[in-house]
Amino acid sequence: MAKKSFPLSKVYTLLEPGPVVLVTTVGKTRPNIMAMSWHTMLEFEPPLVGCVISNRNHSFDLLQATGECVINIPTVDIAEKVVGCGNTSGTDTDKFNKFGLTPKPATHVGAPLIEECYANLECRVADSSMVDLYCFFILEVLKAWIDPTVKEVRTIHHRGHGRFMIAGEEIALKSKMK
Amino acid sequence: MAKKSFPLSKVYTLLEPGPVVLVTTVGKTRPNIMAMSWHTMLEFEPPLVGCVISNRNHSFDLLQATGECVINIPTVDIAEKVVGCGNTSGTDTDKFNKFGLTPKPATHVGAPLIEECYANLECRVADSSMVDLYCFFILEVLKAWIDPTVKEVRTIHHRGHGRFMIAGEEIALKSKMK
Repeated sequence: MAKKSFPLSKVYTLLEPGPVVLVTTVGKTRPNIMAMSWHTMLEFEPPLVGCVISNRNHSFDLLQATGECVINIPTVDIAEKVVGCGNTSGTDTDKFNKFGLTPKPATHVGAPLIEECYANLECRVADSSMVDLYCFFILEVLKAWIDPTVKEVRTIHHRGHGRFMIAGEEIALKSKMK
Repeated sequence: MAKKSFPLSKVYTLLEPGPVVLVTTVGKTRPNIMAMSWHTMLEFEPPLVGCVISNRNHSFDLLQATGECVINIPTVDIAEKVVGCGNTSGTDTDKFNKFGLTPKPATHVGAPLIEECYANLECRVADSSMVDLYCFFILEVLKAWIDPTVKEVRTIHHRGHGRFMIAGEEIALKSKMK
């Protein structure tokens, strides 16, 4: 299914609920994928996302070198692949190949979109002043994509040691919140 | 139900899944409550939490003045109260009174615990160097509490404009992740 462009002003609705995401970066020989749960919105528009990528991860070096990545949001149907990406290292594994994930070219960055994820956010590093102290990167979302056929968004939410909550029923309450 | 002390090393399991939380602060005349979704873990232990509290919120001033707060984690049974806290301002509203929430003394900070929330994290501001640019506070969790009777943790996760996903079924996958 071809993904549709998604308004930058609504990107916060994808990340606020706290899904596990897959971060793709590009390296000299191949792109890499890592699983990440430590992220937060920092600004609505242009959307800024803060995230922790440990300097023990191969993706840390790639993100530092290129200043670009894609945040891909998976749903429960590919949960096994997500955990697989979390259990392996890009230093010795081609994760796209190993887990049967499909890289697609992005429009604004060199890192690829993961086709099997229902949403993709093309990002560049906007502020790296907190990287030394906390491995905390501030990313600007340049372009967002979404699969318009996914209506019930069953994202997965990590609770530690491989236990995940799946996003369940949705409720609507009268809110003045954005 | 009396809450039990919860190990600081496991605090990340409460916040990683991205629940809406209620932040309590203490003011000159009364404590305040705000709803928040823009938070992330930054370090396992001692647990560091990064969060955005807008300078348009009354809680911003109270947190700046006292350097202390409590992160309270609600479940869906009090979702209406959570949205109520988000729709009102502490400048003219006593939210504990208006929404029938019960303040309990904390052990390490002046801000109160919300009794009706299943978990409570007593925090102090550890780093405010990103407050001017992003209203981003780095908090250290000093003490954590949990209601041991809550087995199925039905936290709520904001998707924008009052739409919330409720944490649903849980799955376990073989993970090397912490």
